[in-house]
Amino acid sequence: MTEETAVEPIFERVALVGIGHIGSSLARAVKREAGLIGHLAISDLDAGARAKAEELNLADSVHEEPADAVADADLVVLCTPIGTYRAISKALAPHLKPGCVISDVGSVKRAPIRDMQPNLPENVHFVPGHPIAGTEHSGPESGFAELFEGRYWLLTPPEGTDRDAVAKLGRLYTAIGALVEEMDADYHDKVLAVTSHVPHLIAYTIVGTAVDLEGHLQNDVIRFSAGGFRDFTRIAGSNPIMWRDIFLNNREAVLEILQRFTEDLTALQRAIRWGEGQTLQDLFTRTRAIRRGVIEARQEVPPSADNRG
Amino acid sequence: MTEETAVEPIFERVALVGIGHIGSSLARAVKREAGLIGHLAISDLDAGARAKAEELNLADSVHEEPADAVADADLVVLCTPIGTYRAISKALAPHLKPGCVISDVGSVKRAPIRDMQPNLPENVHFVPGHPIAGTEHSGPESGFAELFEGRYWLLTPPEGTDRDAVAKLGRLYTAIGALVEEMDADYHDKVLAVTSHVPHLIAYTIVGTAVDLEGHLQNDVIRFSAGGFRDFTRIAGSNPIMWRDIFLNNREAVLEILQRFTEDLTALQRAIRWGEGQTLQDLFTRTRAIRRGVIEARQEVPPSADNRG
Repeated sequence: MTEETAVEPIFERVALVGIGHIGSSLARAVKREAGLIGHLAISDLDAGARAKAEELNLADSVHEEPADAVADADLVVLCTPIGTYRAISKALAPHLKPGCVISDVGSVKRAPIRDMQPNLPENVHFVPGHPIAGTEHSGPESGFAELFEGRYWLLTPPEGTDRDAVAKLGRLYTAIGALVEEMDADYHDKVLAVTSHVPHLIAYTIVGTAVDLEGHLQNDVIRFSAGGFRDFTRIAGSNPIMWRDIFLNNREAVLEILQRFTEDLTALQRAIRWGEGQTLQDLFTRTRAIRRGVIEARQEVPPSADNRG
Repeated sequence: MTEETAVEPIFERVALVGIGHIGSSLARAVKREAGLIGHLAISDLDAGARAKAEELNLADSVHEEPADAVADADLVVLCTPIGTYRAISKALAPHLKPGCVISDVGSVKRAPIRDMQPNLPENVHFVPGHPIAGTEHSGPESGFAELFEGRYWLLTPPEGTDRDAVAKLGRLYTAIGALVEEMDADYHDKVLAVTSHVPHLIAYTIVGTAVDLEGHLQNDVIRFSAGGFRDFTRIAGSNPIMWRDIFLNNREAVLEILQRFTEDLTALQRAIRWGEGQTLQDLFTRTRAIRRGVIEARQEVPPSADNRG
């Protein structure tokens, strides 16, 4: 072993609970770079996912019970739908190592503080997190190590969280290519309602509207989907349970943005009905500026590589 | 010249009126394959677009006035926003060669029959058309010869249209890689309202809703756009005039689909408010089937290469 590779791992033992798209991508990413972590333990209640994880050699140990994976872990990351957080945190609590860091990857950040924090022992460090990365695909086979490169990973530690714990988790995510930022949980949930949750709800809705069309029309909608609809079907092909839990757990922010959206859509609908071309053109011109902003912020990548909430 | 290349061109002289994204792509496509057409004339009222077309060597002759381009042409294709059709067809009519085929590329197909047909002489063949292809980019420099490969090009000839004219136009588009199909104009407009027009309107709306957010929130919406919003900004970056004209000219179908969409969205909004997870999960599961349909119909390509109405 040369001196260069003999650096100390950021976390000695890491446990990932849930080995779907994000969990398996994180597993691949932290294992790719030698010496970043020591032992990687993963758990999944689904036997098929576990078998796949073994076959893909995603971890050093694969467990059915989360409690077995987290025993002695220095970092625990929940990679399961938000609706599972309460039960899992209760089940894990007695098995957490004192001083360990516990995080998650959910697209809502107030809910974990509400659902997890009260169940955790005082001697662990709770640092909620959210990688703005993912694809519409699900399951351990769909992950890839490069998923987080150049993508934001937002951390929303509650007030009073140990700064060393936050810094250590940030170092790990930075090491796998993510852009780590800290943010207030409520503000996070508002931003994500606009950038992800409401867009997904809208995409699900219009695809659902198409599902209800008469048979022959529905077939042609699929055949001629290249005019814009196709992009919506991609978004609406995402994991149903994960998205159900996102909407149920970011209700207030989603409803507020939906209300604004509906008002704006009603105004456009009226402009179309009354032939008010200037109203349409003005809006369509203004939205171009936002597009330029997105391109300049370098958040434009092939959408197939990244569109998760 | 070998015998193989000495085949007769499908059209001797082709005139494209308007040399934006679609016009310049069509110019490149028909010129790429030697012998497909004879002379290619293009016209554009915009001096900048003409200069660009000259610089890119897109055509055999470049004209300011459409009348000069279409003189003696065997095929004339309007590649301008739908709102220009009435005036252009009136201006062109006296200059059209008897027996020529005249078409367009607009995303609405009842409107050209209403706006162009009455102005055209009886001795020309009017075959409205619509390639379901394009990107969010505009201008002659944004086109590319491969744009139509594997994409549908729908023709909606009015009843009684000369079958040879329809077949000849279909042969040209097939030769540049398009999948040519015939369809009723009203049916076309209904399908496109679902697959393209309403999705674009929704994308424009949500991006517009974000534009109206407070300054700091708006900045973060752009920075953290990777969660779905980014795809909407791409769609909402399309040509404002083109899209204004689409909505104004497919009013009835757009308003009908919008009405259905709004009802469906209201139902989901209610489900979120009352915490009805099963309603959400059921829809999100059903929409996955549509996604599979789109993939099986091979209409899934990198969206950056194709998302026009």
